[in-house]
Amino acid sequence: MNRLFTEADSADIVVERLASCEDPRFREVMEAAIRHLHAFVKEVEPTVEEWSRAIEFLTATGQMCDDRRQEWVLASDVLGVSMLMETLNNRAQDGCTEATVLGPFHVEGAPQLEPGGNICRDGKGMPCHVSGRVTDSDGEPLAGASLDVWQTNADGYYDVQQPDLQPAMNLRGRFVTDPEGRYAFRTVKPVSYPVPTDGPVGDILNRMGRHAWRPAHIHFIVTKPGYRRLVTHIFAHDDPYIDSDAVFGVKDSLLVEFREQDDAARARELGMESPFCAAEFDIRLARLP
Amino acid sequence: MNRLFTEADSADIVVERLASCEDPRFREVMEAAIRHLHAFVKEVEPTVEEWSRAIEFLTATGQMCDDRRQEWVLASDVLGVSMLMETLNNRAQDGCTEATVLGPFHVEGAPQLEPGGNICRDGKGMPCHVSGRVTDSDGEPLAGASLDVWQTNADGYYDVQQPDLQPAMNLRGRFVTDPEGRYAFRTVKPVSYPVPTDGPVGDILNRMGRHAWRPAHIHFIVTKPGYRRLVTHIFAHDDPYIDSDAVFGVKDSLLVEFREQDDAARARELGMESPFCAAEFDIRLARLP
Repeated sequence: MNRLFTEADSADIVVERLASCEDPRFREVMEAAIRHLHAFVKEVEPTVEEWSRAIEFLTATGQMCDDRRQEWVLASDVLGVSMLMETLNNRAQDGCTEATVLGPFHVEGAPQLEPGGNICRDGKGMPCHVSGRVTDSDGEPLAGASLDVWQTNADGYYDVQQPDLQPAMNLRGRFVTDPEGRYAFRTVKPVSYPVPTDGPVGDILNRMGRHAWRPAHIHFIVTKPGYRRLVTHIFAHDDPYIDSDAVFGVKDSLLVEFREQDDAARARELGMESPFCAAEFDIRLARLP
Repeated sequence: MNRLFTEADSADIVVERLASCEDPRFREVMEAAIRHLHAFVKEVEPTVEEWSRAIEFLTATGQMCDDRRQEWVLASDVLGVSMLMETLNNRAQDGCTEATVLGPFHVEGAPQLEPGGNICRDGKGMPCHVSGRVTDSDGEPLAGASLDVWQTNADGYYDVQQPDLQPAMNLRGRFVTDPEGRYAFRTVKPVSYPVPTDGPVGDILNRMGRHAWRPAHIHFIVTKPGYRRLVTHIFAHDDPYIDSDAVFGVKDSLLVEFREQDDAARARELGMESPFCAAEFDIRLARLP
């Protein structure tokens, strides 16, 4: 005989119904979700109208999602949950490169380019050279590591946000490190840009009194068999939004300088126009146990 | 200068960004939501794969919703949140009829019928007479109170779940109390039925090891200007699922007996066939302050 619902024991009564759950991990997660959900509702005591608005938000956020837009990932991002997830899942990696959020704009199947290749296909923005080494946590070079990099164009939009205005796969590319663990690619200097605000998540950002801007950054996913997959960004250290990233992605160790320079010889050597800017970022991957 | 993200202070750091929120209630709700969300994530430490499955669930639940189906309300129902909401919003109504969940199948604009009218339009099931009085908390009759009632047909489906099989507005009707506060309507004996399990909420019910059944019931919304709107059900007291309602809606005070009877004279008087069943349920509304 189950107990009938009461306000005082509401969470316990719902949790008791998990008695026949056969998946202990699912049971643990659902129990925690139910307890926090009930505690939250009791704490704020929503009116029926507020509950209806919550249902509308939940519904609209799912309905905003399609192949090109993941509004729930954006919700997770702006509430700091994505960043918390990345942090929890990448602890205790002493000396290794810190992770940050994946974000909603990663696309599988970016073009595989030669070292030093140019990911910019629209010709806009200040030319930029990015390079560094991928090593293990002891600094030993990792040859054959894969880098998947992406960023917005100089107007602050990812290619998938402007399918009619940008070439497909603009500012996306995959690279492999050389025998010394080196990587390099050409791109344009990243710019700060707002996360999309035309959906339900934009509405709550606005109602929270928050701006939607992310400081200029380039996304990286770095992988090598036997090593932990790294999802991170590099950030322009002097960006005006560096301490107020809408998705909380910034970590001190991920700040880099995009140094502007007017060195025609060096530019020629790199296959670039002058002036250009350059950033260096070394990456340390954690070996899997 | 905002603080950069850290695991230890993650919720505080996100909450600090509400500093410019101009709506104190929204700020209070978002702060509580953020704190519980971060506490939940820290408690269960989801893997990236679990987080992805959560994003898929959240997305699919919104995408399951349309004019006829509100999967988020169903999620709220099966997690006991809807019932908690109803309970919180209808406390301290001593002597008044208890509320229960609205459920996802209410439809505006049900036909207005004369007292004693029949809401069953498909002719299936055992004829049933439902009657009672609507009074204030002191038992004084309330004339002109409106009742909006709905239930499944004898096969256990609401009309909106079977638009091609059931007549429109089958088992839905609106009634007004007479000068003595009396109401009466004809219908069919309600049956137990499962909540829809073909969507993401059905998946989690299944994974929780829970059944999807609701004990037999009839929904009521009772309104009168100056009185608190009552959203409730009456439940068949001897239903096999009476102590395990998938949406936690059952309260002791809402149990009624659907008495089967074979009284040809009484049936004729009520305009019914014999045998039939009858249920009586008096309703007390709380006066608004």
